[in-house]
Amino acid sequence: MGTATKKTIQQLASENRSYFQMAISVDCVIFGFDNNALKVLLIKSDLEEFENEWSLLGDLVHLNEDPDAASYRVLKEKTGLDDVYLEQVHTFGEVSRHPAGRVVTIAYYSLIDIKHHQLKLSQNELHWHAVNNVGKMAFDHKKILLTCLEQLQSKIAEQPIVFNLLPEKFSLRELQNLYEAILGTKLDRRNFRKKFLMMNWLTDVNEWEQNVTHRPGRLYRFKRGKAIKNCEKNSALPLVIK
Amino acid sequence: MGTATKKTIQQLASENRSYFQMAISVDCVIFGFDNNALKVLLIKSDLEEFENEWSLLGDLVHLNEDPDAASYRVLKEKTGLDDVYLEQVHTFGEVSRHPAGRVVTIAYYSLIDIKHHQLKLSQNELHWHAVNNVGKMAFDHKKILLTCLEQLQSKIAEQPIVFNLLPEKFSLRELQNLYEAILGTKLDRRNFRKKFLMMNWLTDVNEWEQNVTHRPGRLYRFKRGKAIKNCEKNSALPLVIK
Repeated sequence: MGTATKKTIQQLASENRSYFQMAISVDCVIFGFDNNALKVLLIKSDLEEFENEWSLLGDLVHLNEDPDAASYRVLKEKTGLDDVYLEQVHTFGEVSRHPAGRVVTIAYYSLIDIKHHQLKLSQNELHWHAVNNVGKMAFDHKKILLTCLEQLQSKIAEQPIVFNLLPEKFSLRELQNLYEAILGTKLDRRNFRKKFLMMNWLTDVNEWEQNVTHRPGRLYRFKRGKAIKNCEKNSALPLVIK
Repeated sequence: MGTATKKTIQQLASENRSYFQMAISVDCVIFGFDNNALKVLLIKSDLEEFENEWSLLGDLVHLNEDPDAASYRVLKEKTGLDDVYLEQVHTFGEVSRHPAGRVVTIAYYSLIDIKHHQLKLSQNELHWHAVNNVGKMAFDHKKILLTCLEQLQSKIAEQPIVFNLLPEKFSLRELQNLYEAILGTKLDRRNFRKKFLMMNWLTDVNEWEQNVTHRPGRLYRFKRGKAIKNCEKNSALPLVIK
């Protein structure tokens, strides 16, 4: 093999014209937390074949558009939100996943505090659904939703990302409700508190819950800067056993 | 909005024909461990524009091929390997990333035990490179490599995946060397051992190193079944503090 066999990019491109027949889309899985339930934002499919089924928020990526930009555009267009962090999770590209042709979709997820985001829900059939009560979904969107849920379940054990789903100040009871909603399982109260305080992610704000029917709980805040620093790569082993 | 506005998939497809002009590729980051260094398998670029630069192992995805299948095909064609686990890491789709047109690439990574895999390296300019000594790379392949390295650094703290880079039985010294090579930093010996044994990922096989110049160390094996079980999702908080 010498330089004789080298091609130019132009040669490569013209030899491979037939490969340039695919489309890319983005699909956004927007999680929220409300009334002690993990919710996801879905839209009624606008396709006849998927009548009465639910879709993720998504669209085709324009030819001159980066996928990340496309995911923010979709979110902005469909909900009015433009201050939400989206993270790429996984790409789904099975040959037969889309009946309209070869469409490879990049899935993103996001966490938002439902109460603090007023969505423009009026102009389309957009609704929050309890994650464990989502009905039939269009395309492979159920699989995409479940993959993003698994990612979320795995991440909350390692990184203090749930503050995106909570008000600024919250009680340990609220925090535990949130973890239970995401994990879909009950946790032991004493054990949860012990583990969480060990991780040193929280600051006691020296205030108490108000207007609650149960005994008011102490309020906490996530140590954002510190937490993020702790989560940086290159920690030898998980921060929680340091 | 009623059913009157619903489209069929065929209408959708013909309206969106112009979007179907992209290509998808896969790029495989194959990590290995040898002589106490983390290595990556690279190939000399066969493009004039990238002469003397290194590329990841990759190819365009065929129109009738799933991306996962494409990544295994690439690996098999270029190295002869067909028993290696590949995991999707991230998709890179910036508009200008490929000079031949709009090519969105899905990156995969894999860990292999270099000594136990005889690669067919003869037929192409394929070489193992020390990760922290990789020179100029074609396209955005350096960025892809670094993203996969970050993923590896993050994962080894949480999951017992490094056994793929080690022989079946190994000493704690070898294990620490591997962690240090991946993380690019020295770790405290006593602390490393204490943390690792706390995680309960290892079985003492009741044997000792042989033919070593230092004092022979005890040999261990990863508890594969148990380790994998421990790593399943839905654990409330990281397994290491249970």
